[in-house]
Amino acid sequence: MTNIEILGFTSAFLTTFSFLPQAIQVIKTRDTASLSLAMYSIFTVGVGFWLVYGIIKEDSAMIVANMITFILSSIILSIKVYNDLLVKRHTAHAR
Amino acid sequence: MTNIEILGFTSAFLTTFSFLPQAIQVIKTRDTASLSLAMYSIFTVGVGFWLVYGIIKEDSAMIVANMITFILSSIILSIKVYNDLLVKRHTAHAR
Repeated sequence: MTNIEILGFTSAFLTTFSFLPQAIQVIKTRDTASLSLAMYSIFTVGVGFWLVYGIIKEDSAMIVANMITFILSSIILSIKVYNDLLVKRHTAHAR
Repeated sequence: MTNIEILGFTSAFLTTFSFLPQAIQVIKTRDTASLSLAMYSIFTVGVGFWLVYGIIKEDSAMIVANMITFILSSIILSIKVYNDLLVKRHTAHAR
């Protein structure tokens, strides 16, 4: 493996697994107030597109990396959407 | 441009600019409580590595995309670190 390949794999490893501590924090605390709904919506769709791109290109590294990121990002997005809907319902009840 | 190229550019556009609404929200609200410090630290370093990778590979699309993501991610990380240090100082004063 060349130095450039090692750099590429390290970069992919870091950007992929960076979402793990965020997912763990959101699962533990259930707090998503400062997370942007727009960010996680757009990001999750974008990573899903990268996954399709990897599948078409038959690039196994891209498929694995984007699969993991897609799962982590989807978990964060799901809890964010759940919380936002809950807040809306609470606000509606309070009126 | 082929369909696969369009898919690649769309994916890159989405994952790059998804951090814009998060950066705007953090700048406006100054709230970073539910953002993971570990995530933004690891992610910013990872994107920095992707940027170096793009520069070495002389891939202008990678350079531009990772440059933008690096700037947005750095803004979010800076405010997160600032807030966390501020909270620590406040907690120390309260003792």
